[in-house]
Amino acid sequence: MKLIKDMLAGHRLSLARIISKMENRDADVSSLMATLYPHTGKAQIWGITGPPGAGKSTLVDRLTANLRKRGKKVAIVAIDPSSPFTGGAVLGDRIRMQQHSGDPGVYIRSLGTRGKHGGLSHATKEVVLVLDAAGFDIVLVETAGVGQTELDILRLAQTIVVVLVPESGDSIQVMKAGLMEIADIFAINKSDRVGADALSKELVTMVGMSPHDINSWIVPVLQTEGTRNVGVDLLVSQIEAHQLYLTHSGKREIKAREFLRNEITDILNERLNKSVLSAFETSSGVDLLNQLMNREIDPYRAADIISK
Amino acid sequence: MKLIKDMLAGHRLSLARIISKMENRDADVSSLMATLYPHTGKAQIWGITGPPGAGKSTLVDRLTANLRKRGKKVAIVAIDPSSPFTGGAVLGDRIRMQQHSGDPGVYIRSLGTRGKHGGLSHATKEVVLVLDAAGFDIVLVETAGVGQTELDILRLAQTIVVVLVPESGDSIQVMKAGLMEIADIFAINKSDRVGADALSKELVTMVGMSPHDINSWIVPVLQTEGTRNVGVDLLVSQIEAHQLYLTHSGKREIKAREFLRNEITDILNERLNKSVLSAFETSSGVDLLNQLMNREIDPYRAADIISK
Repeated sequence: MKLIKDMLAGHRLSLARIISKMENRDADVSSLMATLYPHTGKAQIWGITGPPGAGKSTLVDRLTANLRKRGKKVAIVAIDPSSPFTGGAVLGDRIRMQQHSGDPGVYIRSLGTRGKHGGLSHATKEVVLVLDAAGFDIVLVETAGVGQTELDILRLAQTIVVVLVPESGDSIQVMKAGLMEIADIFAINKSDRVGADALSKELVTMVGMSPHDINSWIVPVLQTEGTRNVGVDLLVSQIEAHQLYLTHSGKREIKAREFLRNEITDILNERLNKSVLSAFETSSGVDLLNQLMNREIDPYRAADIISK
Repeated sequence: MKLIKDMLAGHRLSLARIISKMENRDADVSSLMATLYPHTGKAQIWGITGPPGAGKSTLVDRLTANLRKRGKKVAIVAIDPSSPFTGGAVLGDRIRMQQHSGDPGVYIRSLGTRGKHGGLSHATKEVVLVLDAAGFDIVLVETAGVGQTELDILRLAQTIVVVLVPESGDSIQVMKAGLMEIADIFAINKSDRVGADALSKELVTMVGMSPHDINSWIVPVLQTEGTRNVGVDLLVSQIEAHQLYLTHSGKREIKAREFLRNEITDILNERLNKSVLSAFETSSGVDLLNQLMNREIDPYRAADIISK
């Protein structure tokens, strides 16, 4: 495929077009992946998550600048919250990040969350694979919140940085949110604010109390200030340390296998959803739906019939 | 099944056990549904959604008290946010709602959102069917936020009340969040606060601008104060008006058919996920995963093989 050849040669327009195809679940998706997939597996994938207002975008911006100085090619996939409940100045953030827009070593793509019933996490993960194949050294996946969709997307990341601010609440809330389970690194951002030290201490205690053995990764708790570029060097070092840990502990391979199993499930679910949709458009499908409406058959029996 | 017989006779312990089976995706789920399903289709299902801190639980509490006075049996399904990003005093809310706990005409159940990969909305919808079969006149489904899971759950509701507060932001944000699309009624709660009238006016204008014809439901914008029980009577009347509208317009049936199509898809997806999981535990599944890891085959081709 010429499109992929161009993309592998570094053409950004081809890259953008392939990503759009993945995002829109184009009919080409399957054949694109067949050609792309052998080129994947080289990128590091970092997830950056945390509550709205934690300064994730600024931090991602700083991480990107830092990595560029080290000669790394960086792609950023930002999941735009579709809800005012979960996020604020999204557009502003994106505009700000365009400071890298002249740089061929940086690629930024926002993915919306609206109107993609069940498909967002699948599409996002395939977009990350495209960026991996395109030769970016590091793909940063930025998500707000830890809803089911975000958690599902983060499965793809090898290293997850949970960004908090002193106002995020105490360690109990962090634990209740399941952040303890997903965090490989805690970054307490805006650490010049009151409460940063207290939250750090609490998190360190919590990390110490969680079960671990000699082979466990002990989750570091860092303080950062995105706006003043404080602590970003240390954050990059810790992420790199975690990446080394993943390789040596064998956990990189475990994660990669889990991701592939999920990808297969996602592909089959997508096909299934399409086939159920068309089955209900046939006359026997319409009959079945009428029987369901009249309570003459129950959904599980109807599922048996439609899947035959 | 004795358990269902007991439940239909009004035994609360049997009801609780059946709900737990649905929630935990017990092996019985399919046979339970076969017996239960003929008894469903009578309850009104109301969805109450909105940002954390909008006072949804207090309003649900007041709605429940109001409906009890009208002699209605009420079940409440509260989706507990699992994230500190999306919710606060969850436990406190639940404890407060226990003022109804001595009343056999009220049943309250919280469902957690953690650790149920993709399964929460399916389980929740089946729990609502159980409560419908159990003879509750109205099932109130309370969710925070409008993530994909919450939107999916709300598909089951016939009438959706979006609860806002003057601090929720302006109508542009409401529109951006897709709340315009899902709201059947807006309730501006804590309406004694500054900004309530301004937000009301904006929303009314927005409603007026959205495309509608003679057969459309014009989304009413109400002001409520849950804590002082202001506007709750009017809210109930408007919900009842919407329920009448659904019947007369034929939209009740359209919604019911859509729900059933989704339920079938959910059932088949659940089965598929299980079968993929076990396929990867066979020796040919392990071989396939190794080929994937080595990039000798791509995920779409692997999906073809595993689904054969």
